[in-house]
Amino acid sequence: MSNISRLSIDNSNLFDTDIGEGGVSNKEIEALSDRLDPLRKQIKEWTNSDHPTFLNLPHKSNLKAIKERGQKIAGQFSRTIVFGIGGSSLGGEMLVRTLGDSHPKNSVSFYDNVDPSTMITLENVDWHETLLLVISKSGNTAEVLSQFLTTLPIMEHELGYEQASKHTLFITENREGALYKLGEELNIEIIEHPPVGGRFSVLSVVGLLPAYIGGVDIAGVMEGARAMSERCAEDDILKNPAFYDGAAQYLHARRNRTISVVMPYADNLRFVVNWFRQLWAESLGKIDADGNHHGLTPTEAHGVTDQHSQLQLLLEGPDDKLVTFITDPGFRFQGRRVPLRFREIPAISPLAGHTIGELFMSELKATRTTLSRRGRPNRTLALLERDAYALGELIILLEMETVVVATLMGIDPFDQPAVEESKILTREYLSEIQLIGDLI
Amino acid sequence: MSNISRLSIDNSNLFDTDIGEGGVSNKEIEALSDRLDPLRKQIKEWTNSDHPTFLNLPHKSNLKAIKERGQKIAGQFSRTIVFGIGGSSLGGEMLVRTLGDSHPKNSVSFYDNVDPSTMITLENVDWHETLLLVISKSGNTAEVLSQFLTTLPIMEHELGYEQASKHTLFITENREGALYKLGEELNIEIIEHPPVGGRFSVLSVVGLLPAYIGGVDIAGVMEGARAMSERCAEDDILKNPAFYDGAAQYLHARRNRTISVVMPYADNLRFVVNWFRQLWAESLGKIDADGNHHGLTPTEAHGVTDQHSQLQLLLEGPDDKLVTFITDPGFRFQGRRVPLRFREIPAISPLAGHTIGELFMSELKATRTTLSRRGRPNRTLALLERDAYALGELIILLEMETVVVATLMGIDPFDQPAVEESKILTREYLSEIQLIGDLI
Repeated sequence: MSNISRLSIDNSNLFDTDIGEGGVSNKEIEALSDRLDPLRKQIKEWTNSDHPTFLNLPHKSNLKAIKERGQKIAGQFSRTIVFGIGGSSLGGEMLVRTLGDSHPKNSVSFYDNVDPSTMITLENVDWHETLLLVISKSGNTAEVLSQFLTTLPIMEHELGYEQASKHTLFITENREGALYKLGEELNIEIIEHPPVGGRFSVLSVVGLLPAYIGGVDIAGVMEGARAMSERCAEDDILKNPAFYDGAAQYLHARRNRTISVVMPYADNLRFVVNWFRQLWAESLGKIDADGNHHGLTPTEAHGVTDQHSQLQLLLEGPDDKLVTFITDPGFRFQGRRVPLRFREIPAISPLAGHTIGELFMSELKATRTTLSRRGRPNRTLALLERDAYALGELIILLEMETVVVATLMGIDPFDQPAVEESKILTREYLSEIQLIGDLI
Repeated sequence: MSNISRLSIDNSNLFDTDIGEGGVSNKEIEALSDRLDPLRKQIKEWTNSDHPTFLNLPHKSNLKAIKERGQKIAGQFSRTIVFGIGGSSLGGEMLVRTLGDSHPKNSVSFYDNVDPSTMITLENVDWHETLLLVISKSGNTAEVLSQFLTTLPIMEHELGYEQASKHTLFITENREGALYKLGEELNIEIIEHPPVGGRFSVLSVVGLLPAYIGGVDIAGVMEGARAMSERCAEDDILKNPAFYDGAAQYLHARRNRTISVVMPYADNLRFVVNWFRQLWAESLGKIDADGNHHGLTPTEAHGVTDQHSQLQLLLEGPDDKLVTFITDPGFRFQGRRVPLRFREIPAISPLAGHTIGELFMSELKATRTTLSRRGRPNRTLALLERDAYALGELIILLEMETVVVATLMGIDPFDQPAVEESKILTREYLSEIQLIGDLI
């Protein structure tokens, strides 16, 4: 059925057997099992239903259509610019930056902010060579609409009205939304955003289309995602990786380890953390039915760099964190070798003869060990092959863990009710600008 | 004496008068005043002593020598590559990326990791045009030594032994350290690292030399830093900005708001956050004399992007955070204007006619207001002129606040005792590599 996993999950340093009394136990995990019964039922429904959900995306997605469209785009344009914010950009950017071609024929870049000093860089784009891909599920996102509406005149000036529309593509769901209406009025092609929340949409056209254009093996991503989704359908809590690690994280959170530090040892895995931060924060930061505030704070640290920045806090600060290392053991064999030439100098002697990659991985191991010796919980997710398949596995694992933790907390992982007020206020403040005179 | 401040500090949303019972009070702040007496004495000593400290750097630094050296380097090379990690790179990178020339004649880039897939990009450097600046206070930092020793053969191959040395410059303090010995053996010029810890060294040659080469007005930075250091010498706790805001943050931490979220609304202020994260984490994550674990966790969020990622958690998650916004009100007047053309579409109507910058600043104001209405503490640091002077003020403010919080916690902000174990283990694991066969 499924292939051999290329994602190694080592959660031993979350447990009492390895880190002593600070760790959780299998017995505690098993005691939570019954509370996941409703989720077990939902997983079966999600996987099999015809209604798209984050979990059946890998099973039901029509890759053929995405590939055909991607090939057409890649044949016609040398550059794709994505306008999107949050779930509309983070997933695609993770795929492109982690797996994409490093010297691409077709470059893909993401504008996910409305900082005017960043937006001004759009003035230098050669629009004759460029496709603009605008993504908003609701079609009413203020930032994305503003990005598009301020860029449209530049495109129209350079390309003419009709051609500007042909250099633009929308992804949106809401037929009543502004983006849909603009598409109709300007004769811009619209791809349907599936009815899956932005932060769970990476394995749909939202993430896969930019990924494919950027040279990512999206079939491989989906294959890995499918394999992991099958493992996550396992009933036994100790054999289901997302149930097991999700429950362990929940138990640590109950012991006040409410900060989730994700520490990639690999520069280009940082984009996985950017994507994960939204998934974790927005899914778990909620008020439950009894009015209790829930939420685990995701933070990032970068190996090895942050050993010289955050490690002191991780080791001697309050015991309020759980660290997830993400890495690629293959690094060990990479990088130039430190020459033997100066090995008589004391600080150089342990380095001489070793590769940069060996140093990099030894540092990870040292950080793990130091944390564990102090009873600080940590786990390691290693992409044994840093390829599309392993990343697909990782994506589903982290999505499912998020759902598991939400279920145990008694909250809905899929909504984000609190941010509406700030959106309304933004519009209010915009309308008052002439009056208030000052925005600080 | 001092110029008018270009840094606006609005801490009103930390106080009960503005956010209700969740806020702290001036009375509570004043009650802490006596505990800062030893610090008041130290500030006077630090400022006036001939022994360099982070606080007298702006008063005693010899800018003339740094500028002369920088001019020489900029005249001879078109590119400077800095090898350094933690305090050896974060300060300089902040200055260059925030204030540096965006189209520099002399580019400055920082390598602060030993990820082999990043290090490989050094193979393409034109060393004939390039200066290598290697920074390590102790001179024994494994990462920096490995970076240098694996790069040296490439430089020597391209330039010859003698020229390679002339394209290299060291900054180090320890005459017994490996870097010093390498400098002597290879005939490489050595600049003395001042006896100031890395994370407090930005206003010394460590940060200022790369900044000057990168086009930063370092005299302006120092002028702002001096002005703020004078304000921070004020005895009255309510009139000393670092004492006031430091004490307020300490009081919030005592109410379990132990996560410090720094949220710049300005893409290029992100590098200020990178620098601050080390300052805050490494200075405050400590065990005190009674064995208690202290530490406030710095995290970052990016405005407006993370309104679509972290805001739900900030609003409805646990009340365990204090948010510091950093911004530039001048943004309001920047960016293209959303055309009126589609203003009949409901979601577009509030945007029509406004600049991208007005949207950006309205979003900040909405986020502030939403947090404050829910009693979530926050403050805003605004660079009224985004220039060297204001950044200099900000640097000293954040450094002094860190020292104030450490003093109130009863810990030493200047050491980092816990990371030594991990450094020793790294060397151990390197030496065992043949035996263990696997680093995961």
